[in-house]
Amino acid sequence: MSGPYRTVGVIGGMGPAATVDFFAKLVAATPAQRDQDHIRVLIDNDPSVPERSAAVAGRGPSPAPRLASMAKGLVAAGAELLVMPCNTAHAYASSIRDAVPGTPFVSLIEATIAETLERAPGARRVALLATDGTLEARIYHEAFADVGVEVLAPVESEQRRVMAAIAAVKRGAAGPEERSALRQVAEVLVTSGAQALVAGCTEVPLLMSDPELRVGDTSVPVVSSTDALVTQTLTAARR
Amino acid sequence: MSGPYRTVGVIGGMGPAATVDFFAKLVAATPAQRDQDHIRVLIDNDPSVPERSAAVAGRGPSPAPRLASMAKGLVAAGAELLVMPCNTAHAYASSIRDAVPGTPFVSLIEATIAETLERAPGARRVALLATDGTLEARIYHEAFADVGVEVLAPVESEQRRVMAAIAAVKRGAAGPEERSALRQVAEVLVTSGAQALVAGCTEVPLLMSDPELRVGDTSVPVVSSTDALVTQTLTAARR
Repeated sequence: MSGPYRTVGVIGGMGPAATVDFFAKLVAATPAQRDQDHIRVLIDNDPSVPERSAAVAGRGPSPAPRLASMAKGLVAAGAELLVMPCNTAHAYASSIRDAVPGTPFVSLIEATIAETLERAPGARRVALLATDGTLEARIYHEAFADVGVEVLAPVESEQRRVMAAIAAVKRGAAGPEERSALRQVAEVLVTSGAQALVAGCTEVPLLMSDPELRVGDTSVPVVSSTDALVTQTLTAARR
Repeated sequence: MSGPYRTVGVIGGMGPAATVDFFAKLVAATPAQRDQDHIRVLIDNDPSVPERSAAVAGRGPSPAPRLASMAKGLVAAGAELLVMPCNTAHAYASSIRDAVPGTPFVSLIEATIAETLERAPGARRVALLATDGTLEARIYHEAFADVGVEVLAPVESEQRRVMAAIAAVKRGAAGPEERSALRQVAEVLVTSGAQALVAGCTEVPLLMSDPELRVGDTSVPVVSSTDALVTQTLTAARR
């Protein structure tokens, strides 16, 4: 392949609707006059990867061996850089990097943090809508702490509503009720002082697509981890 | 993988938006309570495949070697059956079947004809919105003739409007003008006696998503080749 872009490999299926969303947004964001201007994308949409939140909590098998195997398979098939549109699975990012040491892995977490700092410059506190696994592994807590930003996560009863909404997307049954639940949880966090809302689970942007969230007189940017990864993938893939 | 479905390999990128659309519809159509109930889908979205219509017309290189190579790559990566959400490329389906003789290839053309016969039982004439290559290779003309159905294609000046609409989708610039053009071309064919409208190019359903087309007092089913392939893929993939 000799086009303007490197071949992108997608470690996907976590969940499938989120992988579709990433792929759709990547294609839509690529400047193209014809098919041949687009990026070659290899996708392994493998929904059988063990549950990430359960693994982080020590209640299930690790997804690491499967993620490493998918990474190797994609590189063997021609992928020149890898991405993974699942935040929670980034708890196992080192297993992917170790499996294919010669291939760049574009981190969804780093992409999201970069976009948050750009869209909410000077923010000291951000709200995080993410899975139990992402919270428990403290993926965003630690990465944001490195840049001096505090993460506000929902209290336990509110977090259960976030997980229910994510599960509804995964079974293709999410609707107005789930949208409303996520919005209410987010509003509480903004009222508590969050200066940006991080949609730190790739199912969340499927339910919250507005670029901003308004609560009373306050308006904060909504940072989609999916959109952030699309932006960084386009940049990283360009030769 | 030991789930309820075989792994599906997608020979894609022709064009990328059509591959996204097929993938999205396949995920949405899969009955699932959680990620692990979904189908493993391997996608090679390779937009560099030589132009199909140009090749059919003898004005460009054949896509056959590339399609055969993609098929082999997907099977090597674990695909247990193959699909290709591009009608025109089916002029080269035999090259794919020859490349991976042990792997079922679910024909988009056969899927579309089966759905047309089901949705318009007894139809003797159907309208076809497709690329120049699909028309010139007579893919649908011959396959429909085998079941006693005549294909009505747009006249040359109208066909140019169809190709312009398809090209607009490929550069991400299709809108109301292209929707309107396709609709007008389709209306002429229905007025000429077509009893169904076959969206025989996977870009067309992105511009015509209604299940029926009404022209005056007449209403005919619109058969989406993408939807037809999704249905057949789900059936063929089930173990």
